[in-house]
Amino acid sequence: MVTASDSVDPVSDLRLPESASARFVPANADYAARVRSSFDRQGAMQLIGARLASVRPGYCAIELPYRNDLTQQHGYIHAGIVSAIADSAGGYAGFTLFPADASVLTVEYKLNLLAPAKGDRLIAEAEVVKPGRTLVITRGEVYGEDGGKRTLCAIMQQSLIVLSGKSDG
Amino acid sequence: MVTASDSVDPVSDLRLPESASARFVPANADYAARVRSSFDRQGAMQLIGARLASVRPGYCAIELPYRNDLTQQHGYIHAGIVSAIADSAGGYAGFTLFPADASVLTVEYKLNLLAPAKGDRLIAEAEVVKPGRTLVITRGEVYGEDGGKRTLCAIMQQSLIVLSGKSDG
Amino acid sequence: MVTASDSVDPVSDLRLPESASARFVPANADYAARVRSSFDRQGAMQLIGARLASVRPGYCAIELPYRNDLTQQHGYIHAGIVSAIADSAGGYAGFTLFPADASVLTVEYKLNLLAPAKGDRLIAEAEVVKPGRTLVITRGEVYGEDGGKRTLCAIMQQSLIVLSGKSDG
Amino acid sequence: MVTASDSVDPVSDLRLPESASARFVPANADYAARVRSSFDRQGAMQLIGARLASVRPGYCAIELPYRNDLTQQHGYIHAGIVSAIADSAGGYAGFTLFPADASVLTVEYKLNLLAPAKGDRLIAEAEVVKPGRTLVITRGEVYGEDGGKRTLCAIMQQSLIVLSGKSDG
Repeated sequence: MVTASDSVDPVSDLRLPESASARFVPANADYAARVRSSFDRQGAMQLIGARLASVRPGYCAIELPYRNDLTQQHGYIHAGIVSAIADSAGGYAGFTLFPADASVLTVEYKLNLLAPAKGDRLIAEAEVVKPGRTLVITRGEVYGEDGGKRTLCAIMQQSLIVLSGKSDG
Repeated sequence: MVTASDSVDPVSDLRLPESASARFVPANADYAARVRSSFDRQGAMQLIGARLASVRPGYCAIELPYRNDLTQQHGYIHAGIVSAIADSAGGYAGFTLFPADASVLTVEYKLNLLAPAKGDRLIAEAEVVKPGRTLVITRGEVYGEDGGKRTLCAIMQQSLIVLSGKSDG
Repeated sequence: MVTASDSVDPVSDLRLPESASARFVPANADYAARVRSSFDRQGAMQLIGARLASVRPGYCAIELPYRNDLTQQHGYIHAGIVSAIADSAGGYAGFTLFPADASVLTVEYKLNLLAPAKGDRLIAEAEVVKPGRTLVITRGEVYGEDGGKRTLCAIMQQSLIVLSGKSDG
Repeated sequence: MVTASDSVDPVSDLRLPESASARFVPANADYAARVRSSFDRQGAMQLIGARLASVRPGYCAIELPYRNDLTQQHGYIHAGIVSAIADSAGGYAGFTLFPADASVLTVEYKLNLLAPAKGDRLIAEAEVVKPGRTLVITRGEVYGEDGGKRTLCAIMQQSLIVLSGKSDG
């Protein structure tokens, strides 16, 4: 079972001054359990060894331990894998605010790769910038952590769509 | 060994009227072997079961058979996996035009997801729109193929950087 | 009055093999007049001297004669002005397919600048890649034309939202 | 003459906890004067009535009073005009960190429009996320201000290229 862990400290460099959780009220008290259940059904997250690290209203963090089979040709984590955890973090940040009968799909995202994605593990964080009834916009960052030191390696902007009346899986 | 296959017909819907290969002259006659060798060193491509399907100057196609462990919570291929093959297709489309002593890194890309990524397999195609000495810009599409019928499920715009004097792996 | 002109030849370099108009059936026979009327109400298009050059189902072209007051510090057309005509071309390409009681808003777009935007005039072309009931996805290109010779200077990917039951202006 | 004004309070909602100026050291002590001089040569900024509001190392803000001739068909500020001030703010945020003999060009940006761009004036803020020798990555926000109340109406991610040895205009 995936549990929300305290082992990931939210990264404050590009964060909101106040925590995102102070700004957003989830429509569904059960939001964290719904996110965990949905995450567990993402075969791709299991395949790459990603773990749900933190869930709060409008916020989600995912961690990914380094593995050799996640790389591109230089031995860094492949941009597609980086985007997979960034996309899931953004999707679940948005999903925390959805009503119980709605599901989430990614409409689009854009990822800038700032530094090689390497280290003991990657941490993707995302937060909701604009919640809407139809579209939800998020921002995310991916950090590489090596011996406790974090380096920002990617930033994301993402649009999600709220699928009302659609079960999540 | 990964071999360039003829089993993927280039998709013409959003393609150039003339083939990309007519427009671009590779700096390195050995370009296809270099792409295959580099692709084989991408652990992430092996992990997800992606295969290099076609390489021409300024163009690359990658195919990905459907697997349950590549999915998001609705059973479609995860957007991060879709972007992984789109990103690699774009990177190698650009790499075909690079000089022998240069390597490639993705600077950024943007992906619009147009339809659920499903079917027997996905096919990512990308082509160079603007080759440059420092930056190379590509466009890509990802199709889901089900019983021979193709559906466009994602489009990409991507920037690559040419790393001169850097070995590819 | 702005009239649809034949003076802009659709640029075929990055175009569909068949014309976009063959693929799309407008929901509203009056689509071209609606686009022209809406375009005429865009103060920003008037301010910069942009002109609606061509409208077909799922397609729109806008031309912009060069002026010194449209520039950035090097004397090229400012990226924001380039994006203004690309965004309007994409928005109206989508709008041609909307029902009579719906309006259009841009959700997001991404622009890659490939070459300095200069010449006697710029031409922005956009076409619908994916029409949907809620979201419409377009692609666009902007060309600089100098003495009849065209250079691709920007490419765009854009998401539009269909605002049902909202008047266009 | 455009002067750096104190009339724009940096918007803290999506800002760094510490000011950007604490993190970045400009390569050129004269950075603010260089930005102002370059901004004054942007014909497009003059045309739309934009004003340089604040410049610090790695940070720039631009304000734009509302005018009827800057609108799209619903009377909101046109997305292209929104992107023009966002793009210039990002470009000059980066330019503050450039050496004296280098110029700046936008490679690409992506803009999400979150709310109608309206109010007494718009304020675009941008900051450097990753300074590099060749590429500089920024993030930006555009706010609509109405009677002192600010609404976030757009967010941007942008890549700039450092043109070494090229005069700025």
